Amino acid sequence: MLTISNRGQQMPPSPIRKLVPFAEAAKKKGIKVYHLNIGQPDIETPPAILDAVRHADLKVLEYSHSAGNESYRRKLVQYYKKVGIDVSYDQILITTGGSEAIMFGFFTCLNPGDEVIIPEPFYANYNGFACAAGVNVVPITSTIETGFALPPIEDFEKVITPKSKAIIICSPNNPTGYLYSRREMEALKDICIKHNLYLFSDEAYREFCYPPEDGRGAGEYVSAMHLEGLDQNVVLMDTISKRYSACGARIGALVTKNKAVYDAAMKFAQARLSPPGLAQILGEAAIDLPDNYFDAPKAEYMARRDLLVQRLNAMPGVFCPNPGGAFYAIAKLPIDDADKFCQWLLEDFSYKDQTVMLAPATGFYGTPGLGKNEVRLAYVLNLGAIDHAMDCLEKALEVYPGKTITSQVNSSSLTS
Amino acid sequence: MLTISNRGQQMPPSPIRKLVPFAEAAKKKGIKVYHLNIGQPDIETPPAILDAVRHADLKVLEYSHSAGNESYRRKLVQYYKKVGIDVSYDQILITTGGSEAIMFGFFTCLNPGDEVIIPEPFYANYNGFACAAGVNVVPITSTIETGFALPPIEDFEKVITPKSKAIIICSPNNPTGYLYSRREMEALKDICIKHNLYLFSDEAYREFCYPPEDGRGAGEYVSAMHLEGLDQNVVLMDTISKRYSACGARIGALVTKNKAVYDAAMKFAQARLSPPGLAQILGEAAIDLPDNYFDAPKAEYMARRDLLVQRLNAMPGVFCPNPGGAFYAIAKLPIDDADKFCQWLLEDFSYKDQTVMLAPATGFYGTPGLGKNEVRLAYVLNLGAIDHAMDCLEKALEVYPGKTITSQVNSSSLTS
Repeated sequence: MLTISNRGQQMPPSPIRKLVPFAEAAKKKGIKVYHLNIGQPDIETPPAILDAVRHADLKVLEYSHSAGNESYRRKLVQYYKKVGIDVSYDQILITTGGSEAIMFGFFTCLNPGDEVIIPEPFYANYNGFACAAGVNVVPITSTIETGFALPPIEDFEKVITPKSKAIIICSPNNPTGYLYSRREMEALKDICIKHNLYLFSDEAYREFCYPPEDGRGAGEYVSAMHLEGLDQNVVLMDTISKRYSACGARIGALVTKNKAVYDAAMKFAQARLSPPGLAQILGEAAIDLPDNYFDAPKAEYMARRDLLVQRLNAMPGVFCPNPGGAFYAIAKLPIDDADKFCQWLLEDFSYKDQTVMLAPATGFYGTPGLGKNEVRLAYVLNLGAIDHAMDCLEKALEVYPGKTITSQVNSSSLTS
Repeated sequence: MLTISNRGQQMPPSPIRKLVPFAEAAKKKGIKVYHLNIGQPDIETPPAILDAVRHADLKVLEYSHSAGNESYRRKLVQYYKKVGIDVSYDQILITTGGSEAIMFGFFTCLNPGDEVIIPEPFYANYNGFACAAGVNVVPITSTIETGFALPPIEDFEKVITPKSKAIIICSPNNPTGYLYSRREMEALKDICIKHNLYLFSDEAYREFCYPPEDGRGAGEYVSAMHLEGLDQNVVLMDTISKRYSACGARIGALVTKNKAVYDAAMKFAQARLSPPGLAQILGEAAIDLPDNYFDAPKAEYMARRDLLVQRLNAMPGVFCPNPGGAFYAIAKLPIDDADKFCQWLLEDFSYKDQTVMLAPATGFYGTPGLGKNEVRLAYVLNLGAIDHAMDCLEKALEVYPGKTITSQVNSSSLTS
């Protein structure tokens, strides 16, 4: 009999996309669905970079260099310099989205059976690439009570074995929005050096760091590449998807000063010939955007974050730590089961013919059973839409059959 | 110590690209290099499909569906119908080039340690994807004397083990240009059914099938999907790279009627989110090209083939079978070592300040030692350039220190 491979069977389906059929059914019933479930921003792709593709003088759309066009890599050197990362063009490998950078990192650095340590909750697709590479994911739990800060280093020490080869971090984080402090980054550096671990640093949301709600701290972005003495350990995984709201371009980069890693990753890059050509033109043009380009989207995301977090925390029994970056937040809800609740929102609930689509947090944890009363919200819609979505959620929590608090009274009135 | 993974170490470097530094050095010396070494055609990408991208009404370059835009997949159904392949849109998964289709096939259908049987010489990057997937390549030798026809089925039977899971074919073939006949395709079908093997069919060059030089036979293209009763076994790996001279687009497709394979491949597709967005617009527009679009490039390639093969066979000690399709030919040369010769052409030879870059055939064989006096020539340059390149090759064979024939006399004059 023809069989599917073990990894093909074990490969996890996307936890975010599994609710899509229920959303489609809701829309067919005439219900408007606010999509806070996926990281697809509504921010316009800068027209100037789309125009660069429109006006490109192309006769033959040829393969590019397997590492990407040299002109693009040389311009990226300037970009990285602006964010305090000093690399040369031959330390940059252009990839098909950040996804391929992650995949190349796994294939280049880890053997089947090796372990990668990831603070959870984490970007669910790390599971997929680990499965493809035959690598085991070892989660270290961060908690909503600390706002998803880096778990204590002792927790890492406890799980490190001879099979441990890498730690993956994502800061600012998807799905939590947490931004690692310099102190936390230094702690990660120490453990990577002590145990000879690669540090895979997913920095897709670099541009979106916000001052904390309470005004304390600077919202300082610290790249793994800012850490002195860690050059050989760091594999930076980057993408233009979120930076320029160009998710569909599929342009990312693997950046490393470790020449052996670069050279091996390059062989995987050669096998797939080249990254997308049209989108490299777009990526290269993005380096010429004015320095203040990010001011507007960043201010927009911050206003959305403030509204979202304020609305969530005003709901009885809801807790949402204030995220320091990216455009995600995880909220704890007074519900029995996030998967059931998110499906119920689409299948059985509407408020003024509207509902909201959220991502159950269970899909972001590696440890079974965690995240059952948590959801991830992506604040990728405008303020008006977020407000309407929060109206829906507020009403939904009042009537959801699986709610775990009975009082409808606002917590502030309880203490008055 | 930080280490590179075993597969990262074992991953073969591109056999085609390893001569690039020598070509660059030659160019720096002022020598014109005719690139017959890579399958990058000089045929213009149809302006209409580039215009479709230029005029696309895009505000946000969003993720597409992980299987590719539904509108594109629905149009591809029409395209496949025209080439006699009857599939529905949900049996088509748009991939990042044919490369990703090959990779998804390996990951979905084969376990580490499983074996894939490939008639050699074969497209060298199959080795790379096999290495990434931990799969062992078992070559079956086809020979230049038969024009690289399908080896006898007994040769397949001899190597089949319980670990054998798939056969890969590419017809018309890269690197040989051989076009499998219906009889050969039926023989492959029989063995796949008998031994429960997947048939991975790389049909990148479908549009370029030529009548044989002697006028016998029709140059009939037979797809694996034309074979009755093989639906569950066939995984078609396709690309628009060569069809529309759009190698840099990175748009391909995995097509299969085996739902379990499709569903498992879809999970790998979800992990990488979506195929390139801009290039899907280009791919979709290509379906609307007039039916006679292929007439001109096909006639052009045929004229090039005729010139190339005629020139090669007129050189003393050279033999080049006439390829039935694609835009490659393999020639046997009177030389000691193809790798040395190809490097020597770039490093130590020029004729009227020109030389030619060829691909040593050794990189296309899985069996060590084979192909040592063979080179692959890609007829991707115009007739004038091919003629000049053949002048260079002819002169080079006269003076190459490692030549294996001493007479400069033309073979036709020997028999007169």
